This record gives sequence, C-alpha cells and structure tokens, in this order.
Amino acid sequence: MFVPGLIERKRDGGALAAEEWRDLLAAYAAGDVPDYQVAAMLMAVFLRGMSRRETEGLLDGMMGSGGRLDFAGLGRPVVDKHSTGGVGDKVSLVLAPLVAACGVAVPMMSGRGLGHTGGTLDKLESIPGFRTGLSLEETVAQVGRLGCAMIGQTPEIAPVDKKLYALRDVTATVECIPLIAASIMSKKLSEGLNGLVLDVKLGGGAFITDAAASQELAETMIALGAARGCPTVALLTAMDRPLGRACGNALEVEESVMALRGEGPADLMDVTLALGVEMLVLAGAGGGRSGGDPRAAARAELEAALKSGRAAETFKAVIEAQGGNPAVVDDPAILPQAAEVEVYTAPAGGTVLEVEPRAIGRAVVQMGGGRQKTDDVVDPSVGFVITARPGQRVAKGEPLASIYARDVAGVELARAALAGAIRIGKGRAEPLPLVAARITADGTERLA
Amino acid sequence: MFVPGLIERKRDGGALAAEEWRDLLAAYAAGDVPDYQVAAMLMAVFLRGMSRRETEGLLDGMMGSGGRLDFAGLGRPVVDKHSTGGVGDKVSLVLAPLVAACGVAVPMMSGRGLGHTGGTLDKLESIPGFRTGLSLEETVAQVGRLGCAMIGQTPEIAPVDKKLYALRDVTATVECIPLIAASIMSKKLSEGLNGLVLDVKLGGGAFITDAAASQELAETMIALGAARGCPTVALLTAMDRPLGRACGNALEVEESVMALRGEGPADLMDVTLALGVEMLVLAGAGGGRSGGDPRAAARAELEAALKSGRAAETFKAVIEAQGGNPAVVDDPAILPQAAEVEVYTAPAGGTVLEVEPRAIGRAVVQMGGGRQKTDDVVDPSVGFVITARPGQRVAKGEPLASIYARDVAGVELARAALAGAIRIGKGRAEPLPLVAARITADGTERLA
Repeated sequence: MFVPGLIERKRDGGALAAEEWRDLLAAYAAGDVPDYQVAAMLMAVFLRGMSRRETEGLLDGMMGSGGRLDFAGLGRPVVDKHSTGGVGDKVSLVLAPLVAACGVAVPMMSGRGLGHTGGTLDKLESIPGFRTGLSLEETVAQVGRLGCAMIGQTPEIAPVDKKLYALRDVTATVECIPLIAASIMSKKLSEGLNGLVLDVKLGGGAFITDAAASQELAETMIALGAARGCPTVALLTAMDRPLGRACGNALEVEESVMALRGEGPADLMDVTLALGVEMLVLAGAGGGRSGGDPRAAARAELEAALKSGRAAETFKAVIEAQGGNPAVVDDPAILPQAAEVEVYTAPAGGTVLEVEPRAIGRAVVQMGGGRQKTDDVVDPSVGFVITARPGQRVAKGEPLASIYARDVAGVELARAALAGAIRIGKGRAEPLPLVAARITADGTERLA
Repeated sequence: MFVPGLIERKRDGGALAAEEWRDLLAAYAAGDVPDYQVAAMLMAVFLRGMSRRETEGLLDGMMGSGGRLDFAGLGRPVVDKHSTGGVGDKVSLVLAPLVAACGVAVPMMSGRGLGHTGGTLDKLESIPGFRTGLSLEETVAQVGRLGCAMIGQTPEIAPVDKKLYALRDVTATVECIPLIAASIMSKKLSEGLNGLVLDVKLGGGAFITDAAASQELAETMIALGAARGCPTVALLTAMDRPLGRACGNALEVEESVMALRGEGPADLMDVTLALGVEMLVLAGAGGGRSGGDPRAAARAELEAALKSGRAAETFKAVIEAQGGNPAVVDDPAILPQAAEVEVYTAPAGGTVLEVEPRAIGRAVVQMGGGRQKTDDVVDPSVGFVITARPGQRVAKGEPLASIYARDVAGVELARAALAGAIRIGKGRAEPLPLVAARITADGTERLA
C-alpha cells in the first residue's frame, strides 16, 4: 500500500476502493500509517467529498477495525436511537428503558458532552455509582437479562473511529457529512441492530445549523444503514430551544425520571414518544397486537409502559445492574445538589421570542457542567431549569428559570447567559415545529 | 494561536495573514505544532490555492525560520540561478564558475537528485574529496575570495522548508505552485541576492509537464522575488530530451569541464550562455563597458571568460577550496570510472523522433546513480552519454549512446531503457525550442 498515492487520488477527486479504505484504516489503527498522512487524507475527503458508495467502503473499514455485539439467540428485536446532539436532550435516558419495557432490546451506546451539548454518559454518571464502561460481554448479558444497557463506546467497537475522531478534532475536519455519517454508523451498526432511529436536530443549538446539510446527513446515514441491512429512519426535530426544561447533568436525570413516570414536559414527551413509535415499528412490534394502525398501537404500548410504571422500573433495574443507586428513581433528591440556587425573573414584560440553546449549553459548560479541556472533571449538580418557552407571554418579574451553580461566580455567569439567551419583546415567536419531518430510504415526509 | 481555526479558515477558502504564517511556521519549526496539523493545512492550501499576497506571507514565514548569507561590503553584485530540474541538466556546474569569472559573485546553493532528475550536489561529490556542506561563514568567506561557492542548503537556511518539504513528500502535497514557489524562493532569497535567474523546464522530463503550470510557477517566483527586492527573470527551456549528452554524475562533471573549456555540446552551451547573459545583465555588468547592447556585451564577456580559460580556472579554484581534487579539470579521467562500458547502436534506420528524458533519468537512478530510498549510496560512475538527437537521421547499427554501468545487470537495464526512450521511425521530430521564452515582472517575451 503506497499511502501518498491514495492521498493523491482522493486529492484529485478520485475515490478509494473499499479494500483500500480497509487496508488504510487497519494500518492506521495498528500505528503503521502516521497521523500526518491520515490528516492530509481527511482534508482531501473534506474538500473533495465522497460518493455514497465510497462512504460505504469507509464505513466497512471503520467497522472492520473492531468487534460487534452479537445478539443471536436473544429472541427479541434489537433497536437503538442516535441523536446528533443538542441542549437539554435527555431523550436517551427516557427512551431506552421505555422501549425496553415494550419488549424490544436497546443496547444504547452513547457519548460524552461535546462543545455546547451535553452527553448521555455524563448525565448517567451523575447517578451515584453508575458505571458506563461495560465490556461487550457484560453488555450482551445485561441486554439479555433486562432488555437494556446504557454504555459508552467500548474499546472493541470501531476503535479506529476513536482515533480518527481525535485527529479530525484538531485538524478542522469535523464538519464533513460522509465522515460524520461513517463515524456514527460504524458505532451503531457494530451494535448488531435490527433497526436504528436517528434524531437529527435542526436549529441554532444543533451542531449542523444548515437545514439542507442536516437533511443530507440524515439521508447519508439512512443509505448506509440500508446498504448494511439495518433499516434506518430519521426524525428531524427542533433544537432552536432547549428540549424540556432541565439543562445540566443531574437536573436532566431528575427530569428524565419524571418523564418515565409520565410527568415530563410536553415537548420532551412528544419527541420521546415520536422516536419510540419509530423504534417499535422498526422492531416489528405493536402492529400485530392491535390489528390496526401499527403506529397508533406502538404509541399506545409506550403510553401503557409509562402509566404502568414498567418503564421506570426498567430504568431502576438498569441503574442497579450498572452499579448505580436505583433509589434515584423514587427520590431524585439523592442526586448531587448545587450549592447555590437562584430564580431568574423576567427583566421586562412581553412575549418570549427566543430561548437560544447554544448560549445555555455553553453556560452549563462554563459553570462546570461540561469539559473545556478533555481532562476537566464534570460537576453534575450545575445547570438550569428553564420554564420560559418561546411564544409565552410574561410579566416583568415573573420567574423564567432557576439557576443551579456551585458558587456566586457561577450564578453571575448563568444570569448573564440567561439575559442573552431569553429574548423578550413585542412580536411573534416563530419556533421550529417540534418534529418537522420523517425521512426513510423511500423519501421525506413533512410532518409540520 | 489556535491552529484548528487557522486550518479551518484556509479549508474554507480564506487566507492567513503574514503574521499567522510566521507564528505557525515558527511553532512548527520549534516542534510545538505537530506534523498532522501542518499536513491538513498543506492539503487545504493544495486544494484551495493561495493568492500572491498570501504566498508572500508564507515565504516570509519560511525565511524567518532561519539565517541569511550577508554579502554587505563584498563590492560586487551577487546573483544566482535556480533550475526546476531535469535530466542531464549540469548547467549549474558550468554557469557558476563562468559567471563568477566575469566578476559577479555566485553563491550557488543546490540540491540532491529527486525522482528521475539528477542533483548538482551529487554531481559535485563525484569529484574526489569535494565537500558541499559549507557553513554560512565558510560560504561567505569563499565567495569573497573566489566569487563562487557551490553548496548544499545549510541547516541555518530556511530550516522549516526542509521539514515542510519532507512532510509534503509523504502527504501528496508536492505539486502545488505556491508551495513550490515559496520553497524555492525561501532558499534563494536567503542567499542575499541582487538578482536571480530561473531555468524553468518544459516537456516530459520536467517535474511539471503542463506548460501553463510552468508559466504560472515562473510568474509566481518572479512576483515573490520582485516583492522582496530581488529582481528575478525566468527562461523557459526544453526538457523534452536530455540537456547535453551526459546523464549521470561523474559523466556530467566531465561534460561540464569540457563546456568550461568551450567544448561542450551546442545545446548545453546555448542554454548556459542564455542564462549567463541574464545573470550578468541583472548584475548590471556588461553594458557599461561596451557602450552598446548590454546583452551582446554580456555574451561577449562570457565567451571571453571561456576562451581565456578563466572560467575553468575559477572552477578549479572552487574545487580546491572545497576539498576536491582540482586536477579533474585538466584530467577528467581521474573521476570514478564505470566497470562496464558498452555502445548502444540503432536497432533500425530512420529518424530519431524522440529521446525521452524521464526514462533515461529513471534508468540512471536504477543503475545506482541516484537514490530510490533516502539512505541509498549514489554510484557516481554510472549513466549514459547519448549522442543521438531528435531529428537526426541514423542508419541501423550506428552508435547512438554509450552505457556506463557497474555490472552486466546494469548494462541490461540501461539497454532496455534506451530501447524505450530513443524512438526511431519515419516522420519528423518536433523538439521544443531550446529557449522558448523569457519572463520578467513586465511580461513574457516569446523567443522561439
């Protein structure tokens, strides 16, 4: 393999064959190809693009670098969800136990906070004792037993993806649709799924703020899933404001527990149920039992699992199995509590025109709830509970949010962030529809 | 300095300011910026291009990394020549002592063989004892004494260029005009020149075989020279066949000695004199003395320096000063001699349609006269003396070339290369004009 020749071909607009990606990535994973050659290749990919077919080769090369979860003999369908990330996005914490409670296996593999967004692993780790670092064997065993595990990327799953991601992060090659799509799908397809639902965020709090690019990312991932035997469906959902009210690790766990009891905020419940319906339908569950509309049946099943307490019980079992204190589900007050709590009120009356999520997410990070450097320790207690919603009429002095900080400086920072993020004035708020579209291999269906 | 931000800007088609290139390259030279970030940046430059203005910033950053030759108080103009490289291109060996013999200082800094082309340093080192690794101080002192030194890139001259070049070589970012131009000019302008002449090769034996790209490279270097106070002129010369007859290190030294005595092949003499005229005119020499056409006067001076023996004597003095055996100028037979010498004859009668230089150059490398790996030891004795010229009528069995090899396998290899490279047939040869154009900051003058 002559690496400069491969780089040159990509540089000049050509494509690498699947075997070439396989050999290149295997050699990179083994340390036989240096970072600088892969960095040049990544920049060539970024600027020259990649056909769907070539992206499949890249994906296979990334998956080929590692192991897979094997659910043969499990006796139930295996489905997962992936979100492109946002602020207040605690859907995974609710959805995984909820769908598992409906008889579908969910080996939920998640990530940590990145940039202004929170990460499911950081949220889970605010539960005292919770361990996200399960091995492949532990994961398979737990999913067999409980129908659900909530884990981080294990060292065996697509290890070259981890190496590539770290390199992209420091070489300005992150925001590239084929690279993003192959990275996400290499991990998800390694879970041995029967179906995958993508929550692709739209709006200022999403990583990709351009709607056309979000659509293309969704279509690319759906095509990759289809090409590798994993039916994949995407919902485009709103991230022009935080999802739900809580933003911050322990606060989001608390809100998730409320949601599992059926008492979550309406927007969180709606997005969670919409994604859950897709997961159940992909799993082939639901339809048979009601004899009618499989989507309506799936929704009814999900609602029943919430109402009966089975969803909350499943979360409790998962927490216990992974070393955490399951009592948080009954008493969220045992979660880490912030030292300073303060109410933020409307500085003027009017209509809430916007609750800008990126500023909120950044403030959580700066208050200690995320990492500014990779080795920062996350403070699970800090964040916001924001009750103000776009379109709401508020009077001067009316409470809009609660600030949870570890000290007075954090409160100051949070107050300034809210003052910038919550825009009050005359006129109409124009929030994005909560679930704007559903994309499958067959095309896009507008839902709002 | 946030390096991913700089890469991102270049990636998106923006430009780095001069201070940003300076800081980036200084940090890279110091080892504070890793190869992989620079590799991504180089690929972004390759694919996005660079304005003349930005290229000046890159150039300054490369020069800023090192020292400069200082010829203040020398009392004569300092001029050099650079060739983009070819096969049989021994012009530097003749031109440097010749121009120095006319009263112009020539601190000739050259490179080693690269790809299919030979390198001036490798040729000089076929002279027993010749030392090309002079320090800056030694170089300045020798130029002061003899008017000429023939050296390699010292560690003090644009050290970051060396590091960048090695990285470009393995990341498919070599053939990029702004990077090539800044690399060449960073070294040449560090010589503290009053003028520079570029020999830009055209044809299949050149590194850049596209005529428009060659023109652009020439114009870029001329603009960089002008912007930094070094008047620069380029000649576009033929490299669709080897220059002169000898191809191979010691064989080319021998031919250069003949040329310094005025007995070189006509094409070598013509190109050397054309470049020499430009150097003398840039130095401001010539014109005053004849009162008439400065170019004709310069040519007459060069011819007189050859005829009088001053040019050959200057070469002798340079060889002696740099530790070599000056007797080679009187008796080239003391140069290393090949073990096997064989005459290659025409396999058929007809017209010589082509003598393809790249195949010849590659054969010299494979016979041991160049490096296939960086640590290969060069055998100075091997190569070719090719008397066949495009357009020449030959009879079957007529000698076309002599092969100089170290063993029978080398002879076989050489014979096969000549059979492929020397094309004999019916029809007309259409060689490129020897000197096709002269380019200055004012524009291009077609000469043929």
